[in-house]
Amino acid sequence: MKQEIEKIEHGTIVTPKGFHAAGLYSGVKRKRKDLGVIYCEKPANAAAVYTLNKIVAAPITVTKATVNQSKQIQAVIVNSGNANACTGAQGEKDAYAMQAATAKKFGIDKGNVAVASTGIIGLQMPMDNIIPHIEKLDIGQTAEHADAFEESILTTDTFQKSTCYKAIINGKTVTMAGAAKGSGMIEPNMGTMLGFITTDAVIAPEWLDIALKEAVNNTFNCITVDGDTSTNDMVIVLASELAEHDTLTKDHPDWDAFVQLLRQVSEDLAKQIARDGEGATKLIEVEVKNAETTDDAKMIAKSIVGSSLVKTMVFGTDANWGRVIAAAGYSGIDINPNTIDMAVGPITLLENSEPVNFSEEEATAYLENDTVKIIVDVKLGDQDGKAWGCDLTYDYVKINASYRT
Amino acid sequence: MKQEIEKIEHGTIVTPKGFHAAGLYSGVKRKRKDLGVIYCEKPANAAAVYTLNKIVAAPITVTKATVNQSKQIQAVIVNSGNANACTGAQGEKDAYAMQAATAKKFGIDKGNVAVASTGIIGLQMPMDNIIPHIEKLDIGQTAEHADAFEESILTTDTFQKSTCYKAIINGKTVTMAGAAKGSGMIEPNMGTMLGFITTDAVIAPEWLDIALKEAVNNTFNCITVDGDTSTNDMVIVLASELAEHDTLTKDHPDWDAFVQLLRQVSEDLAKQIARDGEGATKLIEVEVKNAETTDDAKMIAKSIVGSSLVKTMVFGTDANWGRVIAAAGYSGIDINPNTIDMAVGPITLLENSEPVNFSEEEATAYLENDTVKIIVDVKLGDQDGKAWGCDLTYDYVKINASYRT
Repeated sequence: MKQEIEKIEHGTIVTPKGFHAAGLYSGVKRKRKDLGVIYCEKPANAAAVYTLNKIVAAPITVTKATVNQSKQIQAVIVNSGNANACTGAQGEKDAYAMQAATAKKFGIDKGNVAVASTGIIGLQMPMDNIIPHIEKLDIGQTAEHADAFEESILTTDTFQKSTCYKAIINGKTVTMAGAAKGSGMIEPNMGTMLGFITTDAVIAPEWLDIALKEAVNNTFNCITVDGDTSTNDMVIVLASELAEHDTLTKDHPDWDAFVQLLRQVSEDLAKQIARDGEGATKLIEVEVKNAETTDDAKMIAKSIVGSSLVKTMVFGTDANWGRVIAAAGYSGIDINPNTIDMAVGPITLLENSEPVNFSEEEATAYLENDTVKIIVDVKLGDQDGKAWGCDLTYDYVKINASYRT
Repeated sequence: MKQEIEKIEHGTIVTPKGFHAAGLYSGVKRKRKDLGVIYCEKPANAAAVYTLNKIVAAPITVTKATVNQSKQIQAVIVNSGNANACTGAQGEKDAYAMQAATAKKFGIDKGNVAVASTGIIGLQMPMDNIIPHIEKLDIGQTAEHADAFEESILTTDTFQKSTCYKAIINGKTVTMAGAAKGSGMIEPNMGTMLGFITTDAVIAPEWLDIALKEAVNNTFNCITVDGDTSTNDMVIVLASELAEHDTLTKDHPDWDAFVQLLRQVSEDLAKQIARDGEGATKLIEVEVKNAETTDDAKMIAKSIVGSSLVKTMVFGTDANWGRVIAAAGYSGIDINPNTIDMAVGPITLLENSEPVNFSEEEATAYLENDTVKIIVDVKLGDQDGKAWGCDLTYDYVKINASYRT
C-alpha cells in the first residue's frame, strides 16, 4: 500500500514540533557563518549513523559514545571550517568541551548533547572562537533561524540543503525535516557529509535506529561524488515525540508511512548533496531494473554512477553507452552480458545488449538537462535500485588541485 | 636471496630467442598502424590472464578457449581501433576468422593462434580491412619490426611501451621482453590494457601460469588510472624454451630469478601504462609499509593511489596529507588511526598520525617531479606493498568529455 506523504514547501528543521535552531559567525571560517545548533524543548529520542572510515574525527567519537549511552539528544552543536580530525587527544578534549559548553548554555545534561564538525583536517580547533560563541547562540523557531543554521554548516557547498515532509499517523500529522551539507562524499581537507533530521513522531530510539538504517542504506549510501568517504560523515535523526500518536513500532499500522517519510527526507537531502558535488553541473540518477536483489541493483547503479568515464560522458553530453555497460560489467554483480536494455531518459540505446538506431542529436539534447537519468534493465529478476551522483568537470579538478591555496 | 637480473637497453619483444614481429596500417584507424603480430618459430608455452569484467569482448573469449585447450601459442594477432566488444555472435565469428587467417598465413595450427583487439566498443569489425592485411604482415627480428608492432597496438596512448631484461638460469642467459598498451585501466570506447611478454625460458605452461599470476597480481593489478576495468584487458606470456636450461619449476634453484624477471618486466610495463594515463602529467607510486599482509599493504596503496582527491592533490602540487590519510582509512583494511607515519619522497609529513613541521615550499617542489612517491607506514606488521597511478588533470576531463566527437 502506497502511503500518503506530502511535501511542505518552505518547511525547515524547526517545522516539526519542539525544535529550535540558530547559526552565527564565530571566526573559524573567513567570513561566513560557522557555528550552529539544533535544540529540542525536551530530550528527543535519537538515532545516528556514522562514517565507516577507520580514521574517525573526534566529534564522531564523542557523539557516538553519547548517543549509545543516553539514546536521547536535546541539542546538536555543529561547526564548519575545522573538522577536528587527526587532532589526537587534544581534539577529543575539545569536542567534549564543545559538548559541555552547549549543555551549560541550555541548562541541559551533557549526555544529551551531540557534536559535529566539518572543515580542515589536522588543525587543532580554535576553541577561543568556539566556546564564547556557543554562549551567544540565540535560538528560535522562525525561517530565519533555520536558515542561519543551514548556512552555518556549509563548507565548499554552493547552496543550502533542506527539505520537509508530513504524513498522517493515527490521524495525527507527523512532520519531518532535514538539513544537510556535503559537496563530495568527501573533501577530506574540508570534509564531510552531515545530515540532521528532525521529527515530532512518537518513536523509541531502537525503532528510530531501524528506520534510519533502512533509509540511509537506500539514500545517503547510494550517492557518490568522488568515491571518497570522509572521516566526519554523520546522519542523525531526532524525534521530539510531540505529535501525540501511538508509539511507532514495526507493528504499528502506519509504520510504513513513517519509514517512507524518513526515506523521502533522506533521499531529498542525498540528491541535493549529489547535485552540489564539487564542480558538478548535473545530477545523475541511475536506475537498475530487474536485478535478483535490491542490493545487486544498487551495487550496479553505484558502479555506473561512480565511473569517471560515465561522469565525463554526461558532462560532455555524449551518449557513449559502452562506458555504462562496462561499468555495469565490473560492478561485482554477475550480470548476463547478452540481455541488457539501456536508455538515457526516454531514449533507448541498447536492447538485449545490442545497439539500436537512435538519434545522436536527441540523445545529446537529453544529456544537456540538469538532471540526467540512466536506466539499465538487466533482466535477471524483479528487484530495482537507484543511485545518484554528478558529472565530472574541469571545475572538479580546479577545486581540488588548488584547494588549500 | 636477491637474484641478479639485468636490464637490456633497446631490448624488444623480438630479443628473446625465437620471436618475430610485424605491424602495419590496415585502415581500421584513421592513419596510424593498427594491425600487428608476434610470431614464434615454434609453438611457445603460453599463459594468460584476462579481464574480470562480466562483459567480455569476443577476442578474449576466443583466446581464453584457445590457450586453455592447447596451452601453446605460436602467433598473437592484434588489432587496434576496434575492440570487437558488444558485437554479439558476429563478433565471435570475426575473432575466429582472424585466428584462422593468421594460422593460414603462417601455415600453423589455428589452435596455436591468440587474438586481441582494442578500440571502439559496439561496432562490428571491419573484416574487409583486417583479413587481407593479415596476409601482408611481413615478420622479422629487427628493432624496426618490434617498433611497428608496438605502434600497431596503441589507441589513445601517447607513447609506445616496452621493456627487456635478462637473468642467468643454470648458467644460461634467459631473456624476457614485453610490449603493452593502455592509457586508462579502461577507456571503454577505446578500451583496454594489453600486455605481451616473450621469453626464451624453458618452462611448462602450468608453471608459467603460476609465475604470471603472481607477477600480474603485484604489478598490472596494482595500477589504476580511473578505477574502470575494461572488457578487453589481457596479459599473455609466451615461452619459446630456446634458452636451453633445465626446465623451470618451483623446485628449480633459479625459480626465484625467473619470477623476479617476469615481475620486473610486468612492473616496467605497468608503470609505463600508469604514467601514460589519460591526461596524466605524473606517475604516482604509493608504498605502504609494515601492514599485516602484503595484500593489506596493496589494498591500502591502491585505495590511496585511486583517490580522485589524492590524484588532484598531486596535480596541484599541494601536500594535503589529510586526503592520503582519509583514503587509507576507507581502504577496507583495519588500520590503527594513531600510528601512521607518512612522507612524500624525502619529506616527512606525519608521525604517529600527528602533523610534523615541514616546509610547504619543499613539499610543493617535490610534488613537481614527474614521478611522485608517497610512503605510508601503518606499523601493524612487517609486510610492504606498492601501487601505481597518475594525477587527475583538466586533460583527463577534456579527453573523456569529448571522446567520440
